[in-house]
Amino acid sequence: MQLPAQYRQLIECFDALPGIGPRAAARMAQHVLEHDSGERLQQAILTARRTLQHCCCCRTYSDLSICPLCTDDERSALHLLVVSGVEDQFRWEEAGYRGGYFVLHGLLSPVAGIGPRQLHLPDLKQRVETLVSAAESSSAENLLVKVVLESSVEADATGQFIEDMLAGFACRVQLLTPGQLAVDLQHARSFSAADHVPAGADK
Amino acid sequence: MQLPAQYRQLIECFDALPGIGPRAAARMAQHVLEHDSGERLQQAILTARRTLQHCCCCRTYSDLSICPLCTDDERSALHLLVVSGVEDQFRWEEAGYRGGYFVLHGLLSPVAGIGPRQLHLPDLKQRVETLVSAAESSSAENLLVKVVLESSVEADATGQFIEDMLAGFACRVQLLTPGQLAVDLQHARSFSAADHVPAGADK
Repeated sequence: MQLPAQYRQLIECFDALPGIGPRAAARMAQHVLEHDSGERLQQAILTARRTLQHCCCCRTYSDLSICPLCTDDERSALHLLVVSGVEDQFRWEEAGYRGGYFVLHGLLSPVAGIGPRQLHLPDLKQRVETLVSAAESSSAENLLVKVVLESSVEADATGQFIEDMLAGFACRVQLLTPGQLAVDLQHARSFSAADHVPAGADK
Repeated sequence: MQLPAQYRQLIECFDALPGIGPRAAARMAQHVLEHDSGERLQQAILTARRTLQHCCCCRTYSDLSICPLCTDDERSALHLLVVSGVEDQFRWEEAGYRGGYFVLHGLLSPVAGIGPRQLHLPDLKQRVETLVSAAESSSAENLLVKVVLESSVEADATGQFIEDMLAGFACRVQLLTPGQLAVDLQHARSFSAADHVPAGADK
């Protein structure tokens, strides 16, 4: 007995998702075949893939070529936060950070074939270059790039790579754990009279 | 900051799958946006939902209205195996069972709104009725319905419901654990000269 090819293919596709094994994949395949939520998922993937793109500046997901955060003049142009995913960006935004972002969408992993190009690190370099030349000469040295990644071998390697890549620029680069940045933000807020963290408060 | 609606909707759809939490859903959403496998998954769901149906006889997945197993004359018409999912059917087929099947696609669960109708138990009753009238009067009492479900509260209730539902029919109903059926099949095979289990060997 062979289960129909369309069914086996569906299981294989779910199985290819991160952290999903064959048993869970079979459960998901049955779910999308038996429930209307299956059609909703299919439509959601189609719509998201068709309409979402990476913001040309910070690389977050957006339905515009440049996202609303990157066109917001109220935000500090002297602070850049490098994070591994959009969920991290969302969390730091909620926590009160009001500078710029760069979303890597992953971490360096030679085993998985993820190198600097896959993470668009040349774009990050370009972005920092632009920020340095835009900053007035007096404030250029105040430009601060914070790299905040979870602790892992890949994260450490990625942070180190970014630090080395930006070594020659007129900016400071800090490698922080999420906890360190959280304390940093709290500190900045406790000294802040305004509702949002002002440009230079967290250094 | 709000992540784009299309992205949030994609996460919600993955989150609605069984056994998937919000964090895993976000990982999956990012995966389908970043990899070609996302388009493959979307296509696989579309194709499977469009082309697969439940076999009108045993309710397994098939791209035909009646599946190849149910039109196979070589199989015993005196044995019917009731299983909860197509994976179980596949396993028993691999193990050497050569009778008929009925796939429930779930278990009774009042909490989840799954009653006898959702499992198509009236169709199972109809199927047994047909088998009873098709069997020659001498062999009708040899008709054997085996209900093989994993052990759980829902499985016990489902087995009991089926046993009660078929109580008035000229057939025997056995509630077995998967282990008991496995021993049953092994026993049948050890006495069998042929490569497959003959019609009446396993009782």
